[in-house]
Amino acid sequence: MINSIIQNFLKVRNNFKLICEPLEIEDYQVQTIYDVSPPKWHLAHTTWFFEEFILDRFIPNYKRFHPKYAYQFNSYYNHIGDRIQKDLRGMISRPTLNEVYKYRDYVDEQVNSLTKFIKEEELIEIAKLLLIGINHEQQHQELCLYDIKHIFYTNPLKPIYQNTEMRKQSTIEPIFIDLEAGLIEVGYDNKTDFAFDNEYPKHKVYLNPYRIQNRLITNHEYLEFVNDGAYDNFEIWLSDGWDFIKSNDIKTPMYWENIDGVWQEWTFSGYQNLDLNKPVGHISFFEADAFAKWKNKRLLTEFEWEYAHRRLEHSNEEGFFSEELDNFKVLTKKNDKNKIYQMNGYYWEWTSSPYGAYPGYKQAKGAIGEYNGKFMSSQMVLRGGSYASQKAHMRPSYRNFFQSDKRWLFNGIRLGDDI
Amino acid sequence: MINSIIQNFLKVRNNFKLICEPLEIEDYQVQTIYDVSPPKWHLAHTTWFFEEFILDRFIPNYKRFHPKYAYQFNSYYNHIGDRIQKDLRGMISRPTLNEVYKYRDYVDEQVNSLTKFIKEEELIEIAKLLLIGINHEQQHQELCLYDIKHIFYTNPLKPIYQNTEMRKQSTIEPIFIDLEAGLIEVGYDNKTDFAFDNEYPKHKVYLNPYRIQNRLITNHEYLEFVNDGAYDNFEIWLSDGWDFIKSNDIKTPMYWENIDGVWQEWTFSGYQNLDLNKPVGHISFFEADAFAKWKNKRLLTEFEWEYAHRRLEHSNEEGFFSEELDNFKVLTKKNDKNKIYQMNGYYWEWTSSPYGAYPGYKQAKGAIGEYNGKFMSSQMVLRGGSYASQKAHMRPSYRNFFQSDKRWLFNGIRLGDDI
Amino acid sequence: MINSIIQNFLKVRNNFKLICEPLEIEDYQVQTIYDVSPPKWHLAHTTWFFEEFILDRFIPNYKRFHPKYAYQFNSYYNHIGDRIQKDLRGMISRPTLNEVYKYRDYVDEQVNSLTKFIKEEELIEIAKLLLIGINHEQQHQELCLYDIKHIFYTNPLKPIYQNTEMRKQSTIEPIFIDLEAGLIEVGYDNKTDFAFDNEYPKHKVYLNPYRIQNRLITNHEYLEFVNDGAYDNFEIWLSDGWDFIKSNDIKTPMYWENIDGVWQEWTFSGYQNLDLNKPVGHISFFEADAFAKWKNKRLLTEFEWEYAHRRLEHSNEEGFFSEELDNFKVLTKKNDKNKIYQMNGYYWEWTSSPYGAYPGYKQAKGAIGEYNGKFMSSQMVLRGGSYASQKAHMRPSYRNFFQSDKRWLFNGIRLGDDI
Amino acid sequence: MINSIIQNFLKVRNNFKLICEPLEIEDYQVQTIYDVSPPKWHLAHTTWFFEEFILDRFIPNYKRFHPKYAYQFNSYYNHIGDRIQKDLRGMISRPTLNEVYKYRDYVDEQVNSLTKFIKEEELIEIAKLLLIGINHEQQHQELCLYDIKHIFYTNPLKPIYQNTEMRKQSTIEPIFIDLEAGLIEVGYDNKTDFAFDNEYPKHKVYLNPYRIQNRLITNHEYLEFVNDGAYDNFEIWLSDGWDFIKSNDIKTPMYWENIDGVWQEWTFSGYQNLDLNKPVGHISFFEADAFAKWKNKRLLTEFEWEYAHRRLEHSNEEGFFSEELDNFKVLTKKNDKNKIYQMNGYYWEWTSSPYGAYPGYKQAKGAIGEYNGKFMSSQMVLRGGSYASQKAHMRPSYRNFFQSDKRWLFNGIRLGDDI
Repeated sequence: MINSIIQNFLKVRNNFKLICEPLEIEDYQVQTIYDVSPPKWHLAHTTWFFEEFILDRFIPNYKRFHPKYAYQFNSYYNHIGDRIQKDLRGMISRPTLNEVYKYRDYVDEQVNSLTKFIKEEELIEIAKLLLIGINHEQQHQELCLYDIKHIFYTNPLKPIYQNTEMRKQSTIEPIFIDLEAGLIEVGYDNKTDFAFDNEYPKHKVYLNPYRIQNRLITNHEYLEFVNDGAYDNFEIWLSDGWDFIKSNDIKTPMYWENIDGVWQEWTFSGYQNLDLNKPVGHISFFEADAFAKWKNKRLLTEFEWEYAHRRLEHSNEEGFFSEELDNFKVLTKKNDKNKIYQMNGYYWEWTSSPYGAYPGYKQAKGAIGEYNGKFMSSQMVLRGGSYASQKAHMRPSYRNFFQSDKRWLFNGIRLGDDI
Repeated sequence: MINSIIQNFLKVRNNFKLICEPLEIEDYQVQTIYDVSPPKWHLAHTTWFFEEFILDRFIPNYKRFHPKYAYQFNSYYNHIGDRIQKDLRGMISRPTLNEVYKYRDYVDEQVNSLTKFIKEEELIEIAKLLLIGINHEQQHQELCLYDIKHIFYTNPLKPIYQNTEMRKQSTIEPIFIDLEAGLIEVGYDNKTDFAFDNEYPKHKVYLNPYRIQNRLITNHEYLEFVNDGAYDNFEIWLSDGWDFIKSNDIKTPMYWENIDGVWQEWTFSGYQNLDLNKPVGHISFFEADAFAKWKNKRLLTEFEWEYAHRRLEHSNEEGFFSEELDNFKVLTKKNDKNKIYQMNGYYWEWTSSPYGAYPGYKQAKGAIGEYNGKFMSSQMVLRGGSYASQKAHMRPSYRNFFQSDKRWLFNGIRLGDDI
Repeated sequence: MINSIIQNFLKVRNNFKLICEPLEIEDYQVQTIYDVSPPKWHLAHTTWFFEEFILDRFIPNYKRFHPKYAYQFNSYYNHIGDRIQKDLRGMISRPTLNEVYKYRDYVDEQVNSLTKFIKEEELIEIAKLLLIGINHEQQHQELCLYDIKHIFYTNPLKPIYQNTEMRKQSTIEPIFIDLEAGLIEVGYDNKTDFAFDNEYPKHKVYLNPYRIQNRLITNHEYLEFVNDGAYDNFEIWLSDGWDFIKSNDIKTPMYWENIDGVWQEWTFSGYQNLDLNKPVGHISFFEADAFAKWKNKRLLTEFEWEYAHRRLEHSNEEGFFSEELDNFKVLTKKNDKNKIYQMNGYYWEWTSSPYGAYPGYKQAKGAIGEYNGKFMSSQMVLRGGSYASQKAHMRPSYRNFFQSDKRWLFNGIRLGDDI
Repeated sequence: MINSIIQNFLKVRNNFKLICEPLEIEDYQVQTIYDVSPPKWHLAHTTWFFEEFILDRFIPNYKRFHPKYAYQFNSYYNHIGDRIQKDLRGMISRPTLNEVYKYRDYVDEQVNSLTKFIKEEELIEIAKLLLIGINHEQQHQELCLYDIKHIFYTNPLKPIYQNTEMRKQSTIEPIFIDLEAGLIEVGYDNKTDFAFDNEYPKHKVYLNPYRIQNRLITNHEYLEFVNDGAYDNFEIWLSDGWDFIKSNDIKTPMYWENIDGVWQEWTFSGYQNLDLNKPVGHISFFEADAFAKWKNKRLLTEFEWEYAHRRLEHSNEEGFFSEELDNFKVLTKKNDKNKIYQMNGYYWEWTSSPYGAYPGYKQAKGAIGEYNGKFMSSQMVLRGGSYASQKAHMRPSYRNFFQSDKRWLFNGIRLGDDI
């Protein structure tokens, strides 16, 4: 088993290089807003994770690549110690990108040779830590895509990440599908190799009967919302949301721009005319919630979402992940009203569930326990992945979480309703 | 019925005068921090509420006391229109206190004569609005007590609100009581005259078996937490909580002060030696959560709390509300291990539940709909009331809610645990 | 001599009561912006000054009125010790106004009986300190008028300080008067009883030939400036000034408001139609400087101003001080082109001179040395007094100083030019 | 003449490459604090200056290298139009460094071929603009050295700009030299090819007799100041200065650090033991002023400085500029008490003179007029150059100016006194 994990490790590690191929050295260096980290930092931080949690603990007399990298590339682990402030990541010009790639090679080699060193009794723990490290790297590769999109967007020269012709999305008729729920079970179901601790323990939840919409909200629908003056109608906004859009002068999704009367959207291929059939993205929880109120609907709870994901038949065309970054999936035939669409990939779907611990949740001891547990306040759960997520990284119980005002990530809207 | 409501109205209105008796004119004027409103503002705002939502709508040709008071004393109702910024409330010296009391008298008289004007078919709506207005006034009387405590605390002369000798609290042995829950019902049960819309609809929730501690956490226990270095131990803190205590240099509950080696607590009777048997108060959600983690326990969900409140036998001595502000209730005999203590009054108990809508919740149309619904984000639910609450204002389904960093209100800790 | 000083002391002290007569207790309490202090604070602080610097030092076993008032009413004297932060002055409701007036009476009595205690050899120092204290009180009475104007302005009810009918100002033809300067002397000339240390030592300055305008800039001229789009024309603004007006959205003098198409000005008698012949007031240094550039003129240096004040013949009508607060002086006859107008009172005139020490200036030792010297950076000198100044407080060498962005004080513009 | 200017242009332009040789691509990209600009930006901005003010105006049908560079590389010229915010310069990864160097080559070539295009009657204006452009570039090369020092300092890896062995500075006995001044002349004296408009017009100033110290304040003297508790002694500080050091927790010059009990200084060659005989650097005006007060001395006015520079005999060893960056000049023989030392280069000397216009100063029309005039507020004049200045760029009338709190530039202290 450990060998297949290491094979997967090498594949995932290599994927980061592919993601970064279109970048110039200067692009790796910048932190355009607080949320963004420089790609160079992502490359080094994910590497440090393996060094800190595995190599340094399990290889006898392990020699770290550089004694100060733990300080520079620790993100938020208090157990590990001091580190540079998050908002200064873009200020740190050394190590150079070249040195960071050497660091990656060094650590990859060490992990590749791990089996020579480890003892039988450590195998399971190491396997578990490797899986965490791989999933951690996948998360950062996704974050790095968010960040690259923003870095290019911020630049007045509007550079292009990839030059792909966008295919048009065809229409999916919107339908609400009814679900009779009752007492159900949610949480990690042991059907995948790995799950984060925040998906444990599996537990019972009572759901009232509810409805879920068969697809995400489109740019077309969201444009109606904009054109209806929704951003100036306080009635549909949470109080915090109203403050947020007014004090930040927000009037559309993050990457929309009306250029000479034509609505355009910033993409990895530069500005593109807004495809009205595509799902809307880059909206805050506050906007998602307001949109739902405007429609006289509501967002789903994370448990309604999870139950529907398991219970309903998914469309064939379903699934749009970073592996298919070059374009959105295209629906070739009329949509099937019994199936649910776009539950996997596309855009993370804001739920109405604040991020918290499942009943019986126990935080792991030590640094690894800081991974999820300490963030269980003031954030909302998102479900389903995005076109920057990796397919292999996802499962129905996966919980993503962000503050309600975040818009640089790839997030969208699916509606629910009471029956 | 309307007559008995109006009798109650007059009684509650008069209570505000009693609360304010110890104040000087200058005390009514100040806003010491953003959360605090000047007592003069509370007196006027609660009055405006009746004028705006009842008198102006139901009395033909009603003449408002002053045309600009709607601007000055509207709190957050966007439907009503512009208003002065919350943080400027302390800047507004006119109307004088004297004029505000005249305003109160005028509105009280008008309400008292309401029955002369109203039509049969309006009776129910008016009764409902009067009940909201009375409960609204009770909430502000409670807030005003929080604010008075802070206003006096801020003053270097440390003035005293009331000069009462404090009786000592006797010990209650801490016991965890087990509850076998399963599928239960929560929400307003129709047993009181009134409930806020956020307590509707009654609905089913599934609870795992759990435990609840029979009393609140004491100053003694919290002092152990402080002395154990808990405020410097990142392991037990939420990430936001750690940032909060570090950036605000928080090391104890809000009103504690170590004066010449003796721990004292700021009270309505000035600084008093910390009574170690009394419940700890004035702590943020972050501190409550960290305390629970330090004890290897957890906070209760609001539903666990509500179920326990209904299910368990309460102590006779139970209940410490603003009606008994002069002292904490004293336990005269050994405590009974089957009963639960301090569930009513004392300090609001932080739960682990973020404030949100109950399944099927519908926000009322118009200004009155702004009362609760628009605050359903970024706040945590508290249950049980405080010694600044009014007994008649409380019920088991009552949901209070505040941001996780608030400490000026009267909040404390009760622990729960998994079985 | 000491007796006449004490007589003057009593007269000046009494004047503060007269200034405050139109206020309600609530008005004394508020601090509407950082620059403003509550009138109650001014009343107490000026009283503390006499207690701290004279009574406590020269009366044997002097008993302070209250042991904590030094903490509450010290403004900025580090030598005296800790004090409440300036921006919290409005938060402090006790002592009440009533107690502050008792404090004033107590200190007045003590000063009045000073002669019984003091020794021959202390007489000169005490006389000097009394003079400083009196002048200090006069400065605060002026500041208090600025603050009252702002406190009333901030209030949505727009209360009125005094109900006086405003007489119209007649026209003064604007003329530039030439001065052949050369090597001149500036600084305190020993012709008045008292001068602040920042007016010492008298010293030589070389002036190029220059021109001074015979009167202040009028509302009419400033309105032309506004209407010419000056607030949107970066060419005439200092870089800091441009940032200041843009980030604060400033488009007119502070108290102007266009109400239904009519320009009005906030005054002690409420909003009044803008009198176009009156001098413009409430403008920052940045606006004064931009106005001068717009006119292809410049501001005067403080030495050009002082020399002109001494050298030129003043108009009979000259002088508008707080003693005549009820109205602006009216010019009854045609103006005399050899005389200079409005050099005394009306509005403080911004000069182009940054506030600094005169050659040979030595700061006094101890707390009294903090009076002026430590503020000699980042401020600009203003000359001539305002209609909130007291006539007896002024002299040609008097230097006022404020930061370039201040507008709540009573400041205006006089132009100069090169020959 | 134009040809020799162009030769000088090419030499100065080439110098920037030499300055940047030790940098990695990543170093060119970062903006560590607001004051710092990325070296890449400096390289492009100075290039744009020639394109904007000369090439685009005087070469018929001039083709700009890139249409958007005016937006990206304009610094503060409102006449030219919109530009990216100063604090975002580090966010802009494109154009790459490589492209910026191509931009430089393109513009250098165009300037080199200028003589082919220009008409006789334009010669003088172009020569003048070229001289401004060259001097502008020299200023930015100096700023870039400040910035590089800070960029390397910010990096936890503490990279080294150049690896030079530091020679020790020998002692210069401190002597105050008396000057009988009277009515003197200051300002540009026409003895160099070029001066900035803020050095005009030459004009008369009256100086009292004064003293000037023969050398800069040393690290040794400043260390005594530090060890004497000066940073905790409010008596010697300006009020703004006290606020500045307290709110920024400043206790030593910027680049000092006590490492294991040894005082070290951050230099272009990394941390070095503090050379006690070298002049102290990286102190704010506030610290310079406080140091002078602590010594019972004062800073010089800019006119006292200029007069002394012209009037006194300079030491042979005098002059330490960026051309000799590898080390401080060493004094080989006993110092001569009639001569003045370190008036040129070493560290910019804070004067007590706020930056303002000379009598009769007229700001040029158009964008070029924004160069100096609009900054004539809230800054202090510094004189004499630094070891990051270029010798050929300096003259006695040169006025540098910065805000009183700036410490990242190369500034030091020379004392003066009254006689």
